[in-house]
Amino acid sequence: MSPRADAVRNRAKVLSAADEVFVEHGTDASTDQIAKRAGVGIGTVFRHFPTKELLLEAVFAERLRRVGEQARTMATRQAPDEAFRELFGTLVADSGAKQALAEALTEAGVDVRESASPVEDELRAALGELLARAQQAGGIRDDIGIDEVIALLVGASQAIGKTLDVSMRARTLNVFLDGMRPH
Amino acid sequence: MSPRADAVRNRAKVLSAADEVFVEHGTDASTDQIAKRAGVGIGTVFRHFPTKELLLEAVFAERLRRVGEQARTMATRQAPDEAFRELFGTLVADSGAKQALAEALTEAGVDVRESASPVEDELRAALGELLARAQQAGGIRDDIGIDEVIALLVGASQAIGKTLDVSMRARTLNVFLDGMRPH
Repeated sequence: MSPRADAVRNRAKVLSAADEVFVEHGTDASTDQIAKRAGVGIGTVFRHFPTKELLLEAVFAERLRRVGEQARTMATRQAPDEAFRELFGTLVADSGAKQALAEALTEAGVDVRESASPVEDELRAALGELLARAQQAGGIRDDIGIDEVIALLVGASQAIGKTLDVSMRARTLNVFLDGMRPH
Repeated sequence: MSPRADAVRNRAKVLSAADEVFVEHGTDASTDQIAKRAGVGIGTVFRHFPTKELLLEAVFAERLRRVGEQARTMATRQAPDEAFRELFGTLVADSGAKQALAEALTEAGVDVRESASPVEDELRAALGELLARAQQAGGIRDDIGIDEVIALLVGASQAIGKTLDVSMRARTLNVFLDGMRPH
């Protein structure tokens, strides 16, 4: 493998390891833990991400990027409305970890909105496409747009993102999902 | 009027004036402004509420108490399900002011949950009664309980409590209201 391809691969390994370690141990987790999980030396972590802030920022952006990619893929499914509901549920379920990352970034003085802005624009566009397909399929009410969906995602995350009661989460999430159906 | 009745009346006047002034000018509003609005001397304000924290706490508790009272009255209506939806919308609309009060209290070192707890218990019971009547009337799905409704109130407040776009608020609120209907 070329040194360049090797570097790209290592960067991806560090990012994915950091995401896992932050979810498991919180954003105070050490660089050493992340290097071990990634199977690289600690020097490799620092070469790609000289500061903790840069690493947190990259993990956050990578998460948003992956959700956007997932939304693009899901928009091509046979039943885009079911895909839309599935993705909505996944995003709410993952919101706790995303929130913890965003808070750690804010504490470190990073403007999350500013730094994530290009990847957020792409995520918004991808979600908007999935929403449009789901509406064309007749499975989602057509009087809501991407702004309402994002507000509902924020609302659902606040409503149940921190609840440990699984059946209460499911009952509450159903109100959101049913509320978005045409009637 | 007896001095005792006079004191009760003045306390109520100060509370109601303080609520208005806090909503209009924020929780940094001066005691002087509040006394003027209430039509009492500044000494009367301090006699009832020696510190700003005590005043904020009382305004917060009075708000919760009034909502509970409103819920009890609404539960006796002919169409309790419509009453339930109406109250849900009102609570979401008022959540910005309530949130500002709660934040000011937290900043002042007051444990909002602790201090509001008896009046919160009554509010929870009153909302629960309205919910039960609305469900008996067949207008609200019966697989949700008071915990889910409170989570949905928190979610809706976060989703649209700070939005100034009135039609976007209405469209998003409708998702909550329709999601709570039986289907």
